[in-house]
Amino acid sequence: MDKILRVDMGAKGGPKFRTEPVGEFAGLGGRAMTTAIISREVHPLCHPLGAENKLVIAPGSLSGTAAAMSGRISVGCKSPLTGGIKESNAGGQAAQVLARLGYAAIVLEGKPEGDDLYKIFINKDGVEVSVDNSLKNLPNYPLIEKLKGQYSDRAAYMTIGTAGEMKLLAASIACTDPEKRPTRHCGRGGTGAVMGAKRVKAIILDDTGLKMRPPKDPEKFKDANRRFVEGLRKHPITGEGLPAYGTNVLTNVLNEAGAYPTNNFRAGRFEDAAKISGEVLAELEVKRGGLATHGCHRGCVIQCSGVYVDKDGKYVTKQPEYETVWAHGGNCGIADLDVIARLDFLDDNFGVDTMDTGAAVGVAMEAGLIPFGDGPGAIRLVEEIGKGTPLGRILGCGAAVTGKVFGVERVPVCKGQAMAAYDPRSVMGIGVTYATSPMGADHTAGYSVGPNILKSGGDLDPHKPEGQVEMSRNLQIATAAVDSTGMCLFIAFPLLDLPETFVALLDMISAFHGVTTTGDDVTALGKSILKMERDFNTRAGFTKHDDRLPRFFLKEPIPPHNITFQVTDDDLDTVFNW
Amino acid sequence: MDKILRVDMGAKGGPKFRTEPVGEFAGLGGRAMTTAIISREVHPLCHPLGAENKLVIAPGSLSGTAAAMSGRISVGCKSPLTGGIKESNAGGQAAQVLARLGYAAIVLEGKPEGDDLYKIFINKDGVEVSVDNSLKNLPNYPLIEKLKGQYSDRAAYMTIGTAGEMKLLAASIACTDPEKRPTRHCGRGGTGAVMGAKRVKAIILDDTGLKMRPPKDPEKFKDANRRFVEGLRKHPITGEGLPAYGTNVLTNVLNEAGAYPTNNFRAGRFEDAAKISGEVLAELEVKRGGLATHGCHRGCVIQCSGVYVDKDGKYVTKQPEYETVWAHGGNCGIADLDVIARLDFLDDNFGVDTMDTGAAVGVAMEAGLIPFGDGPGAIRLVEEIGKGTPLGRILGCGAAVTGKVFGVERVPVCKGQAMAAYDPRSVMGIGVTYATSPMGADHTAGYSVGPNILKSGGDLDPHKPEGQVEMSRNLQIATAAVDSTGMCLFIAFPLLDLPETFVALLDMISAFHGVTTTGDDVTALGKSILKMERDFNTRAGFTKHDDRLPRFFLKEPIPPHNITFQVTDDDLDTVFNW
Repeated sequence: MDKILRVDMGAKGGPKFRTEPVGEFAGLGGRAMTTAIISREVHPLCHPLGAENKLVIAPGSLSGTAAAMSGRISVGCKSPLTGGIKESNAGGQAAQVLARLGYAAIVLEGKPEGDDLYKIFINKDGVEVSVDNSLKNLPNYPLIEKLKGQYSDRAAYMTIGTAGEMKLLAASIACTDPEKRPTRHCGRGGTGAVMGAKRVKAIILDDTGLKMRPPKDPEKFKDANRRFVEGLRKHPITGEGLPAYGTNVLTNVLNEAGAYPTNNFRAGRFEDAAKISGEVLAELEVKRGGLATHGCHRGCVIQCSGVYVDKDGKYVTKQPEYETVWAHGGNCGIADLDVIARLDFLDDNFGVDTMDTGAAVGVAMEAGLIPFGDGPGAIRLVEEIGKGTPLGRILGCGAAVTGKVFGVERVPVCKGQAMAAYDPRSVMGIGVTYATSPMGADHTAGYSVGPNILKSGGDLDPHKPEGQVEMSRNLQIATAAVDSTGMCLFIAFPLLDLPETFVALLDMISAFHGVTTTGDDVTALGKSILKMERDFNTRAGFTKHDDRLPRFFLKEPIPPHNITFQVTDDDLDTVFNW
Repeated sequence: MDKILRVDMGAKGGPKFRTEPVGEFAGLGGRAMTTAIISREVHPLCHPLGAENKLVIAPGSLSGTAAAMSGRISVGCKSPLTGGIKESNAGGQAAQVLARLGYAAIVLEGKPEGDDLYKIFINKDGVEVSVDNSLKNLPNYPLIEKLKGQYSDRAAYMTIGTAGEMKLLAASIACTDPEKRPTRHCGRGGTGAVMGAKRVKAIILDDTGLKMRPPKDPEKFKDANRRFVEGLRKHPITGEGLPAYGTNVLTNVLNEAGAYPTNNFRAGRFEDAAKISGEVLAELEVKRGGLATHGCHRGCVIQCSGVYVDKDGKYVTKQPEYETVWAHGGNCGIADLDVIARLDFLDDNFGVDTMDTGAAVGVAMEAGLIPFGDGPGAIRLVEEIGKGTPLGRILGCGAAVTGKVFGVERVPVCKGQAMAAYDPRSVMGIGVTYATSPMGADHTAGYSVGPNILKSGGDLDPHKPEGQVEMSRNLQIATAAVDSTGMCLFIAFPLLDLPETFVALLDMISAFHGVTTTGDDVTALGKSILKMERDFNTRAGFTKHDDRLPRFFLKEPIPPHNITFQVTDDDLDTVFNW
């Protein structure tokens, strides 16, 4: 990973690329890399869909190695959804393959004139940027079907669906899983729209003939990795809950906690939650001949993914994640897993964020377009996105735009991005993260649900404001660092709860790079990333007033606990004081 | 004008109103009043369509008197379009009538539960707030037809059309002219959406039995008014150009100057501009039996309004203003006055800002929905607004939302509000006003076109950055003060060019209030208003980065002069340094 590929999509006479040494960005991976490049090279006031924006794709610093869980790929840009800096990461095969190809980053720059659509192919022999208008208007699944016959079986694909081509603000970038299904998405913040604006439909990465990235100290690395994996297997969340039931194991937990946002954040408990829980989902998958335990990339030892099939055993979609089951489920009053799975497939196929899309449907329900609980209606709405109708475009631009167009006051977004499956009133720590993360509302940016609800990484009363700011701060710092390694965020549970697992990770990083890495180094990295991101956002016009929840969370108590968000503005303003 | 009417639309058991002394707001009129109340009483981070926002309606400080031109009514709120403070004013009869009724302001507060629609009737005997669901879904013209039989012939009406009921972000509040046509609109910033959110469809003001507001010194007042009117009649713009051809007299002037934004700001000259000029418009109106000279309110001596009729002499709409002829004309490549007049009627009838709607159609053309120049297509698009289809809702939310939904980069807005009929590259002074006005892009907030192009109020090269900031600053200060008197902004031409007319205005104000008013007082008032507005916006999260033009104006030279906007960011940041 000693080089950066820069593709100028706006070059006269057609796209031009050049490979350059990683230079000043050496040593950075994932979010550290995308944030550093965007923050240094992109004008903060540029139009996100214009030639001045860049799309940076970076594998984590440990991607492409034998390190378990190191398969996250980061994508960064100025977000068309939030107007601020964005890093969105996903699993799938892309990170491992890109890292083995030796690229620390791909940077898409400029913007072509005209309507041609491009694909970019990278293998050990080099790079090919070519027009392929036969890919136009293809959703992700048929797109991959069409492409995969043309490339090696080892190829990984990063693609946009129709939503990205249409530059919809909630458009995602799909990454294929080991079975080459476009199921793992950089979902948040409209990265797919930026790729669409640059007219790049697909990036095909082929590592045929290449090996894993070698550690400086192979023996120490192997030993540290073994201890690291031990920790993952020992922790009840990563060793039991996630493999058995997937992320949707959280439905019952959050519903029980009264923190499961129901009917567009009108209540914290959904009476039909049990029908769509992870336990029920896994049982149904197994019964029908799907898969309840599966890894989204090679090298995953948690295996929280799965395969959802219909009653005839036919593939429907990957096992929908908790956030998706919630966004299209409880958030819309829908308790039918087949409906939710269909919506998950549609989102993946068109290439839109399941969270912002589910939140947009919830807002449309609030506006009265269809009633809460109307599953077939929700499917009809999401199908509009694929058709590119005006209604589909509105919904595909996410909850904030949907709220504007339909005149809805209760819109659960921060910095224009939809909240996730945790009500910030009954999990106040996640409210702090939603409000203050430079990414907009993003549960992964500082997952306070751990200490607040799961009692992992600490134990803090979710209904009291005390301590939430400090906790969110520490988690945001740690997360920014983890997002730079290419490691799946779920390693955070054993990392925070089992000191020896954290040591194992540090040892693994040290052995790989041949330089001793301490906990302080990790903290310093996380802080430096957040600092760059906050600085970019400040230059883009953000102020402390953007670090706030919508005011209805302060005024409207949520049942069953009947509490409002209690962390004060002054306290929110201290999150980044360290 | 010693009392304020407050109507709590959200009171339990139905709307409640109370009349209170003007108190701390004594002496304020128009924009000074709306800005003072919004700035002191509205939470800057509230949702504009929520219960926390207020809608303030205030006649000017000279409205309701015998002062010529004093018929502007100001409406203020937190804008759903810009997210900042908003004052939008209009002509028509409302200001005079409301002032004679003795109200310095009407403040609509709160927000009712449920779906009932209300009307508010005010006469000398008091106030009546009543449910009238028979008004639901009525556009402005049929609404007024229905209402006017029920009230005195002296009544003035302030209403919202279907767009306001739908809470579309570009919804206007219509004010009836002397012939009770809903033709004069508080167009900018979505004030109609706020009225719609409060479920108030119509405010009916009846001054039967009431007299003009008496000046402290009637003789001096009468004499000053006579001298003031002399100035208006003597100045070539207010005495000749505007009465003969209306505001559309500017089409040829701006086109000649290469500053007439054509095809969504792609060029500064429209080859068919002559076909839609004020001269042609007036000739056509007279030939067909319409009116080329008409006052939008009693007491107007400029008479820049008119009546547009079809070839059979049948009423189509009021004489479309220059900004409207441009927004739906040159901006969309349309050179057909009958098409433009129809669009003007549709805008007035549904109740949307003609500028943001025209700009939205231009952006839709840029996105390829219909080609530039397609008049029937533009009519079809605007008709969608009235139908409330998703496409109509998008367009009715203005150019910024339309650009987001259709993925368009070239969107001519500042702070979310569409620019007017002057390209900021070839009239750099207006660019400074667009960028820095607390209102968002608003030509009336500091009409630098005067000195830049019309050579009124000074003479400054429009193609050079030098001096533009100072000029815009002075004009913004003066305008804020004028907007507080209820005076039509067109008085600014003689005011700036004829020292004796400015003296006459000061004498008139002094004679009315019985307190000597100087030029310094006027300046101090203007500054104090801008200060409050800037402060509100800062508390709402605005920064200097919001005081910028979209970057394509800095990068894309506009023909025929092939210049970009040249005022630096640092200079823009000095506009409010005084």
